[in-house]
Amino acid sequence: MSVVEDIGRETVDDLVGRLGVAAREAAAALAVASSDKKNRALMTAAEALRARCAQVLEANGQDVADAERDGTSAAFIDRLRLSADRVEAMAAGLEDVARLPDPVGTEIARWQRPNGLDIARVRVPIGVIGIIYESRPNVTADAGSLCLKAGNAAILRGGRESFHSAREITACLAEGLAAAGLAPAAVQQVPTTDRAAVGALLRMSDHVDLIVPRGGKSLIARVAAESRIPVLKHLDGICHVYVHAGADPEKARAIAVNAKMRRTSICGAAETLLVDRSVSGSMLPPILDALIEAGCEVRGDSETQALDGRVIPATEADWGTEYLDAVLSVRVVAGLDQALDHIARYGSRHTDAIVTEDAAAAAAFLTFVDSAIVLHNASTQFADGGEFGMGAEIGISTDRLHARGPVGAEQLTIFKYMVRGTGQVRP
Amino acid sequence: MSVVEDIGRETVDDLVGRLGVAAREAAAALAVASSDKKNRALMTAAEALRARCAQVLEANGQDVADAERDGTSAAFIDRLRLSADRVEAMAAGLEDVARLPDPVGTEIARWQRPNGLDIARVRVPIGVIGIIYESRPNVTADAGSLCLKAGNAAILRGGRESFHSAREITACLAEGLAAAGLAPAAVQQVPTTDRAAVGALLRMSDHVDLIVPRGGKSLIARVAAESRIPVLKHLDGICHVYVHAGADPEKARAIAVNAKMRRTSICGAAETLLVDRSVSGSMLPPILDALIEAGCEVRGDSETQALDGRVIPATEADWGTEYLDAVLSVRVVAGLDQALDHIARYGSRHTDAIVTEDAAAAAAFLTFVDSAIVLHNASTQFADGGEFGMGAEIGISTDRLHARGPVGAEQLTIFKYMVRGTGQVRP
Repeated sequence: MSVVEDIGRETVDDLVGRLGVAAREAAAALAVASSDKKNRALMTAAEALRARCAQVLEANGQDVADAERDGTSAAFIDRLRLSADRVEAMAAGLEDVARLPDPVGTEIARWQRPNGLDIARVRVPIGVIGIIYESRPNVTADAGSLCLKAGNAAILRGGRESFHSAREITACLAEGLAAAGLAPAAVQQVPTTDRAAVGALLRMSDHVDLIVPRGGKSLIARVAAESRIPVLKHLDGICHVYVHAGADPEKARAIAVNAKMRRTSICGAAETLLVDRSVSGSMLPPILDALIEAGCEVRGDSETQALDGRVIPATEADWGTEYLDAVLSVRVVAGLDQALDHIARYGSRHTDAIVTEDAAAAAAFLTFVDSAIVLHNASTQFADGGEFGMGAEIGISTDRLHARGPVGAEQLTIFKYMVRGTGQVRP
Repeated sequence: MSVVEDIGRETVDDLVGRLGVAAREAAAALAVASSDKKNRALMTAAEALRARCAQVLEANGQDVADAERDGTSAAFIDRLRLSADRVEAMAAGLEDVARLPDPVGTEIARWQRPNGLDIARVRVPIGVIGIIYESRPNVTADAGSLCLKAGNAAILRGGRESFHSAREITACLAEGLAAAGLAPAAVQQVPTTDRAAVGALLRMSDHVDLIVPRGGKSLIARVAAESRIPVLKHLDGICHVYVHAGADPEKARAIAVNAKMRRTSICGAAETLLVDRSVSGSMLPPILDALIEAGCEVRGDSETQALDGRVIPATEADWGTEYLDAVLSVRVVAGLDQALDHIARYGSRHTDAIVTEDAAAAAAFLTFVDSAIVLHNASTQFADGGEFGMGAEIGISTDRLHARGPVGAEQLTIFKYMVRGTGQVRP
């Protein structure tokens, strides 16, 4: 049952269509708004979030109570529930986005032609971006603010369980926009939980330029299958750490444990460890020790099992599984070539790391592994826009078009060519 | 009836699937092939085209005879027909592409983080690109060579009327690839004219990363509607020339006439001329004279009609029409704001130009007109990858993602992040 209950299918289409028209109009103005205005909107929205913290928490309390009554899982409730600290973190996040450099208007390249034409490639916003996400209220502030920073209008469609929380947060963003003299329609929430609204949004190619789904596999698969609009996808993160024969043992141990265990639920967490046979006897046992002592379940091939009795046999399915949990699959390989083959076959082209002091092996790994992020002697957990110095991100793209890796404000722009002449005509 | 006639639907899927698997494998090797190897393949293919000119012309003669027998139009036959000169132009085109800089492997950006991580954004190929085009044999060489230059495998699907011509040209590309030690499957032609092959290609999202349709509106619309793979589109070019009150009259005349009449059939040809009211009496008559004397039909609003008896009344439909012919719609506007409104309402966001000596008006036009290419005091006919100094192009993208404007070798790449550390783990 939807929150806006008495609307039929046709009305949902009309409703979403009205959002689209308003977003398109807001986007045209926002595209040429000054950095100062956009930043003022973000700073004021942060203040509004702090000032309305009680209302946000009250709305969130209603969402949480409904979800608990419906018997949703504890992990789900944890992602849904806000606290004063979490509201403050959202407000601080808005201020962080305000302080990022404005990508819009920057010249990416500029050159002169022999005929005197001056050609500049200049960043401009994409236009209208639809964000479809799960019941995580903070995504409302994160995604809305990043779109706004890059001069895009946003249409936000969060999970139905977070509807009331998201409505309060969107109201704070609207307050910021209005205070800065920008159209509040630059950030709109779909005002119904009716599932038909998602379909309507995905069909609205006239008014929406890009869809960004944020959430689990099934959400992204549904969006990709249904959308008539380009989709920027973030799929599996089956990330590997490869300990090469030339690795420093201490770096190998520290990176393997950090890549898996620092946070197991993020997409940059390692899921498989590959170790060269020539060093597996010396380097692998201390890694297995450290992992298992830290609470990790290790599923290994027969050679790994032989090194530690606590290792569980890995099956073929393990190599292609994104655990997002304290579980790691471990395989001993003959060398670099077999490691590359394994990653090409089972990896998800997200983030992979090599540990080695051998410069040639590192260079080969960085070149031949076809992933959005390839690292040498560093943990896969650095796969994060903030860690890259790009500021907030809306996700890590595993697509091969437009943007790959962390998607921050700059990746939510496109460019146009400004050509300056003195009367040139083409011969 | 298809050229490969006795294959049912399921076999077409299998056939296209085999092309996809071979292309994916070839792409993996091509992605890390040296510039030298790729260039050698292109240069050898050019030689092969010259050496096999007679065979290419014979195959083309068969295509042309079939098309003539089927009663296709003279314009169609003209695009289909090759000559020794046209084959030489294709060969020279391959050599031009070989001489372009290789975009693959170039560092787009590189920076250090406070923790010592060194982050580089490096260009890499997209992967496998499907090109769907009309019966223009030269596109086989153009599109195949650009994909190859950028390290992508190409699956080419030209119009059925050019099937035999394209087969011969593809064989020359394959010869070049083989001579350079690269997989001939890096450039494959779909070996059937069965229309079901297009559908199969558009559904093959596992093996194809990007679809580029080249051709008329209906082809692009079909591809965009059916494709399960991202599409880089080139839609209408409803391009404007706006003569501002501050224009130099001679530049205005020269640019307006060139933008319309140099070549009327290209997407960068102007379709509408807007002239400020305050100068329409002085500047417009000589422009109308020059256009009409050059053989252009002018369709104008009432103010334009009043200036020249040869002007035909324009209807509402004219403002949104891409004539691609010696026809121009002309409207007198109150000033910059009305010109911007007109372009926003009727334009196709492809290419638009302002003629003025007023720097503020020029800056406003370049900023506010939301088109892939905006020009100041230069003809819209410069909308071309070669004129931009980018070399050959596969089209002018009117999309708002990945690439906008001329799509050359660089635009057929994406990037990855190479992160170099010294043992960093994430706190």
